[in-house]
Amino acid sequence: MRNTACLLVSCPDRKGLVAAIADFLLAHNANILHADQHQDREAGLFLMRVEWDLEGFDLGLHRFEEAFSPVAAKHDMTWRLALSSVKPRLAIFVSKFDHCLADLLYRHHAGELYCDIPLILSNHPDTHWLAEAYKIPFVHIDVTKENKAEAEAQQQALMAAHHVDFIVLARYMQVLSADFINAWQNRVINIHHSFLPAFHGAKPYQRAFERGVKLIGATSHYVTEVLDDGPIIEQDVVRISHRDDLEDLVQKGADLEKVVLSRAVKWHIDNRILVYGNKTVVFD
Amino acid sequence: MRNTACLLVSCPDRKGLVAAIADFLLAHNANILHADQHQDREAGLFLMRVEWDLEGFDLGLHRFEEAFSPVAAKHDMTWRLALSSVKPRLAIFVSKFDHCLADLLYRHHAGELYCDIPLILSNHPDTHWLAEAYKIPFVHIDVTKENKAEAEAQQQALMAAHHVDFIVLARYMQVLSADFINAWQNRVINIHHSFLPAFHGAKPYQRAFERGVKLIGATSHYVTEVLDDGPIIEQDVVRISHRDDLEDLVQKGADLEKVVLSRAVKWHIDNRILVYGNKTVVFD
Amino acid sequence: MRNTACLLVSCPDRKGLVAAIADFLLAHNANILHADQHQDREAGLFLMRVEWDLEGFDLGLHRFEEAFSPVAAKHDMTWRLALSSVKPRLAIFVSKFDHCLADLLYRHHAGELYCDIPLILSNHPDTHWLAEAYKIPFVHIDVTKENKAEAEAQQQALMAAHHVDFIVLARYMQVLSADFINAWQNRVINIHHSFLPAFHGAKPYQRAFERGVKLIGATSHYVTEVLDDGPIIEQDVVRISHRDDLEDLVQKGADLEKVVLSRAVKWHIDNRILVYGNKTVVFD
Amino acid sequence: MRNTACLLVSCPDRKGLVAAIADFLLAHNANILHADQHQDREAGLFLMRVEWDLEGFDLGLHRFEEAFSPVAAKHDMTWRLALSSVKPRLAIFVSKFDHCLADLLYRHHAGELYCDIPLILSNHPDTHWLAEAYKIPFVHIDVTKENKAEAEAQQQALMAAHHVDFIVLARYMQVLSADFINAWQNRVINIHHSFLPAFHGAKPYQRAFERGVKLIGATSHYVTEVLDDGPIIEQDVVRISHRDDLEDLVQKGADLEKVVLSRAVKWHIDNRILVYGNKTVVFD
Repeated sequence: MRNTACLLVSCPDRKGLVAAIADFLLAHNANILHADQHQDREAGLFLMRVEWDLEGFDLGLHRFEEAFSPVAAKHDMTWRLALSSVKPRLAIFVSKFDHCLADLLYRHHAGELYCDIPLILSNHPDTHWLAEAYKIPFVHIDVTKENKAEAEAQQQALMAAHHVDFIVLARYMQVLSADFINAWQNRVINIHHSFLPAFHGAKPYQRAFERGVKLIGATSHYVTEVLDDGPIIEQDVVRISHRDDLEDLVQKGADLEKVVLSRAVKWHIDNRILVYGNKTVVFD
Repeated sequence: MRNTACLLVSCPDRKGLVAAIADFLLAHNANILHADQHQDREAGLFLMRVEWDLEGFDLGLHRFEEAFSPVAAKHDMTWRLALSSVKPRLAIFVSKFDHCLADLLYRHHAGELYCDIPLILSNHPDTHWLAEAYKIPFVHIDVTKENKAEAEAQQQALMAAHHVDFIVLARYMQVLSADFINAWQNRVINIHHSFLPAFHGAKPYQRAFERGVKLIGATSHYVTEVLDDGPIIEQDVVRISHRDDLEDLVQKGADLEKVVLSRAVKWHIDNRILVYGNKTVVFD
Repeated sequence: MRNTACLLVSCPDRKGLVAAIADFLLAHNANILHADQHQDREAGLFLMRVEWDLEGFDLGLHRFEEAFSPVAAKHDMTWRLALSSVKPRLAIFVSKFDHCLADLLYRHHAGELYCDIPLILSNHPDTHWLAEAYKIPFVHIDVTKENKAEAEAQQQALMAAHHVDFIVLARYMQVLSADFINAWQNRVINIHHSFLPAFHGAKPYQRAFERGVKLIGATSHYVTEVLDDGPIIEQDVVRISHRDDLEDLVQKGADLEKVVLSRAVKWHIDNRILVYGNKTVVFD
Repeated sequence: MRNTACLLVSCPDRKGLVAAIADFLLAHNANILHADQHQDREAGLFLMRVEWDLEGFDLGLHRFEEAFSPVAAKHDMTWRLALSSVKPRLAIFVSKFDHCLADLLYRHHAGELYCDIPLILSNHPDTHWLAEAYKIPFVHIDVTKENKAEAEAQQQALMAAHHVDFIVLARYMQVLSADFINAWQNRVINIHHSFLPAFHGAKPYQRAFERGVKLIGATSHYVTEVLDDGPIIEQDVVRISHRDDLEDLVQKGADLEKVVLSRAVKWHIDNRILVYGNKTVVFD
């Protein structure tokens, strides 16, 4: 495990941006391990991700902001620094379907997801056994129409108490309130079991079956106030045929949901996603 | 090239259907080359395709209907007999985009599509050169808001004159009238440049680009009165990324359109598609 | 869960086979739920799988063999009857890599794999915790060059004691002896982490990386005496790029291995695989 | 169509490379449109592709080498400058199979392949009609065991006379001599009809069919002295089943060959491929 820093930048596109960042890092003896940039010509936007080894880097990280601010100010940069030594803290929300939860917990255990998982939060007790197998704290908060505001207050308090950095809705069958979502902008990842924008909303497999599509899909995205409309992080599809009944679709779809969600979570953890407008850039 | 017959059957599902058809064919010494059946439990429907060698088959084809009718009547079968010796006759409708046309003409030339193409019909003269290269008659009929009914009458007359069996809309940028479509039920194949039902209607690549999807698709389907809503025959997708601009989507999508349309045309020619409700069964 | 029977037949291809089987089943009032057949013209072989509801079937299963034998004898059929009420018994062999094991155990728990798993057998103690989480007996048998014959004798004894029907090598890093394999013909499923026949043998990811391929694959197959050469059941691939180092290949490959192995196991359980020559037919 | 320049660099990896190139370009007022770099940690190699608008670039291109040489020398860079205004000149070699040729000619016509095609060269007259349809000069040179050296001399003379920059073997069924290949290092692109390294050499579809694989593939690569062993540019696969006979494999494979070859040709033209060792980097 290398000890690295990663700088994410977005700003209006203009000349000299790569040079400005590369020169700043070179001036502090950074050994760049990976750099990737993207220009959205239509939006006039420049987006960059650069990662370097902290060994030999001669700028103390507590002084990074002070040192980089003039560069950023000159070019109107929005930026963020992330350190590989700081593990982000993930809370998983789940209901009864447990395939995505089981998948995430196994990947975390296997070292694929470099994060801490301080808690699993569910509106049902059913997945408690999985949390136990992987030794992750599990909290059951019942959510009904009547107690929704109160339940969300409890959830928010738990997020704060556990210093949670981001939330994954691993087939969490409740719609979060606008207040909740706005407090966690670009930090709540959902998996929707269709190829969005097709079949947004309820019962996507049922509707895909009825429409007679030849492929079914899954979509991971950041949650926004508009249901199933947030910036798409990843999508994938699998072929079905007339031989597949609804139950087959659900089972084939579950495999998709697992990989599509886990890729999004991994990329989020690795600071490879930049959101702009209602789109994402996923750096290689 | 074998000399074969192909029977397509659909009827209410019940016991003894496979036996009834297999016994009938055996009684006339048929050598079955390929058989495939499907039961839609929900719809209570039985669908079958069976193909046999005509060598040794002792029932004259002019007497097939008479001989098979009692079996069909007993089981309420809707059926159709197709002969490999009879090439279906295809008319291709096209506008200015010529990639699907070029692809179909090449495949026809290479022997992949076992049909005759008596004419190409276009509302623009642009693709005339392709028709010439492949020695297919080309007719240019201008279509405007004002002359649409008259233009369709001309088109229909040409279809009749050339004994056309089915029509392929190879990126034909005109909406056919309900009258026209109803006269050609399940015999007009369209290619739509999106993963339906996502982005039905106009400018699907533009809208896919704006939504920030990570895959784009194409869909071939039989045309019905409701735009982009007919029974889906085939779909496929290709991965895109933030690096792809709208022009890249159009180019990547063109490759999809070609394969998705040509598969549908081939399966239609090979009598492998059965439509039921708003769905298709594509027999292997 | 329906109570069904499934008949698998292979025999020399000739006229009247479908009729013979369909008539036999109809004579005993079978309600056919699913039928699929395949003819390998080159090999002159007919292969069929037919599944029917046992409700209403008027032939006692203890008398099936007696009743069907004349039909089978007349057409030189090799056949096998399988009942949905009889769960096959699976033993999983594993070493240290636990991703395929974790995946199979979760799928079994979720009801995707309709079998019993009486034991997990490993040459290392590392995966014991997973067996415990899913409450499956775990036996650790150390295997070395010196004790291999003895270890296999122990393994065989355990297979017998637990009435094991088939074995899955879920990344089991030992080569089984010819004697062992011959005792379990077409009943040991392996997952190889390459697109066979490319990179058979050791270190396939390393060799794929060195060769600079643009896709990596995984292959599930029945084990035969020749290493990585048995009948292929399923294969799949995933795209990689120059940005992926060896560790990325291992991680992307692990996801492939899981789905490719679990599909093979599911199809084996569902009696959908017929082996002929060194190939498989996987019925839809 | 923008008027751009593209710089491709490879050198030993060390600090300051991005800064050195970005600073050089900024000093001459370059507006960078696209930049992508890759570090191969194992090989200790840095590879970069940077493209900029020539409008406003204040260094005359005739003086580029002189001006950039000190930067290149300081960092041991191997480099190449390519201009979007200079179309590379492509010669297509073909035998009797014409699907890849037809595909390349259509794409060229459609503007997808930004190159000139001064000639098509074949050892058979069969594809002459395609050359005519697309108005490309066609030369037929018969190649036999006896006249091979002489035929290659003729071919080489034609390449020189037409100022050919690179060659595409679009299913050219002759093995070129080592002398020929060495004269065109990393400038001859071949399409092999298998997923290399599986089934290198003759009759790959036949061998894939016999092995019973579940996917077939195609591979485009630069030609080296060792048959089917050069740096891989692109690969793709398509699913097959037991229902597909050898002829189906050939037909499904043809579609793969077309897209896999045309992607490689496009990337070569767009200066997106860097070869190092026996691998390629394909910049996004």
